[in-house]
Amino acid sequence: MALIECVPNVSEGRRSEVIDAAVAAIERVPGVRLLDRSSDAAHNRAVLTMAGEAAGLRDAVLVLFDVALAAIDLRAHRGEHPRLGAVDVVPFIPIEGVTMADCVALAREVGAEIAARHRLPVFLYEEAATSPARRNLEDIRRGEFEGLAAKLTDPAWAPDFGPSQPHPTAGATVIGARMPLIAFNVNLATDQLAIAKQIAAAVRHSSGGFRFVKALGVALPDRGMVQVSMNLTNYEKTPVFRVFDAVKREAARYGVAVVESEIVGLVPARAMVATAEYALQLADFKPGQVLETRLREPL
Amino acid sequence: MALIECVPNVSEGRRSEVIDAAVAAIERVPGVRLLDRSSDAAHNRAVLTMAGEAAGLRDAVLVLFDVALAAIDLRAHRGEHPRLGAVDVVPFIPIEGVTMADCVALAREVGAEIAARHRLPVFLYEEAATSPARRNLEDIRRGEFEGLAAKLTDPAWAPDFGPSQPHPTAGATVIGARMPLIAFNVNLATDQLAIAKQIAAAVRHSSGGFRFVKALGVALPDRGMVQVSMNLTNYEKTPVFRVFDAVKREAARYGVAVVESEIVGLVPARAMVATAEYALQLADFKPGQVLETRLREPL
Repeated sequence: MALIECVPNVSEGRRSEVIDAAVAAIERVPGVRLLDRSSDAAHNRAVLTMAGEAAGLRDAVLVLFDVALAAIDLRAHRGEHPRLGAVDVVPFIPIEGVTMADCVALAREVGAEIAARHRLPVFLYEEAATSPARRNLEDIRRGEFEGLAAKLTDPAWAPDFGPSQPHPTAGATVIGARMPLIAFNVNLATDQLAIAKQIAAAVRHSSGGFRFVKALGVALPDRGMVQVSMNLTNYEKTPVFRVFDAVKREAARYGVAVVESEIVGLVPARAMVATAEYALQLADFKPGQVLETRLREPL
Repeated sequence: MALIECVPNVSEGRRSEVIDAAVAAIERVPGVRLLDRSSDAAHNRAVLTMAGEAAGLRDAVLVLFDVALAAIDLRAHRGEHPRLGAVDVVPFIPIEGVTMADCVALAREVGAEIAARHRLPVFLYEEAATSPARRNLEDIRRGEFEGLAAKLTDPAWAPDFGPSQPHPTAGATVIGARMPLIAFNVNLATDQLAIAKQIAAAVRHSSGGFRFVKALGVALPDRGMVQVSMNLTNYEKTPVFRVFDAVKREAARYGVAVVESEIVGLVPARAMVATAEYALQLADFKPGQVLETRLREPL
């Protein structure tokens, strides 16, 4: 069975009824399993995680756009997380029995259909990108919804599908294919945002840090803390434990303790096992030594 | 689905054809999956690991006794590991969708059947024990096969099932139910056996350490190292990471570094995930956040 994961990010983290309606619509689609939903009021953003075969996921993404575009008006949307669209990002992720090329093909098919159905500019990103300048989500999203009309006048930013004008309330959307991503945040015992920003700069790729880390410093005013908010885009090459240790060491430089960390949404089992192997200095540990993994292996 | 693990220990670690025959017989039983087999010539002992539902495991244990009792004569058996029977110990272990009480009931059913079928004394141990004096395997096994006839004349050691005389070639057997056990060893950068022994004494329950740790210091002369060799008998209450940290701190007291650790055989996924949660200071992490676990959960 070909198993693909799909993790749409929606620009609504406060009105739970909007996400409830999207979830209900997705759950009526055969062949798709909704695995997780999480919302963040400060980010004003929700992340849905679903898995299934290509055809079911295509239908689920279509109904998600129908619900979200009817309910979300980005002109009135405020939140800490940067966003370009009402449905901001839709990545397809190969999990089992399916290649990255299959996910790229699915992203292009869904992108073309969404653009036509809603007259919405669609950009393809990561492995589905049509040019190196469009691989990184941040580059596509730079300027956000508010800067989109101006950005689209630049021929270099003509969308891959759809019109060269923003959708009036839904902006644009970014669809693509990528490796599993781990959303990993570390909370620090300080309210000094500058410290979180400096640590984020130290660990992220764009400013000299780890190859597969994206990071921002954000304030958590409700809790009197700051957070290093990260996306780990290839946990095999840049493992979670190495990034965590680096954040902890940088925090110590400012005399600041790590209060806790969090993983938002799902994480592949292998990322957790690799962390345990590191923490315990395990030598020669094989994935099949995990009882549940061994049970899933073919005879 | 009710998933139970069963880990029979057989007193044969040199004649691989005997274990091959047992494995072949088990693999013909429907509803049981053989997950692992390992033999140790010095111990003259083999450990089989299988998993399945209660009915399949019952049948698999019955065929294992048929093969082992036909092939093994303890009167001629020599090895470093203490043993009381040709099939020495048979624990049933709850993994998923099944309680400890279910495993106790299965141990009693299988024990009664084995005793009747082979006229073999059977002791119930750990969670299936009929008195506190019979909980610990070591107490039941003390005196080994050679001292069994004398031990059985003591009314306090009347078997739970079967006759009060040893089986002439197969001795007796110990059947029960317990939590998953993790065989966890830590190798130290020294050849001083006394250091491994002192650390083992510091962390094991019997001499004042953690409640669910059994530990020995052993030499690894081939590698010029010593090892703290442990069984962790309840990883939920005495987690692997806490024991590892304690061993590391005790080693530092002697100026000795930890070279590596190893897990022998299988480990439940939850033990690895709990270690990762600890190492990353993860707050509010839920088992269902592991993608593969979430996919197995019922809707």
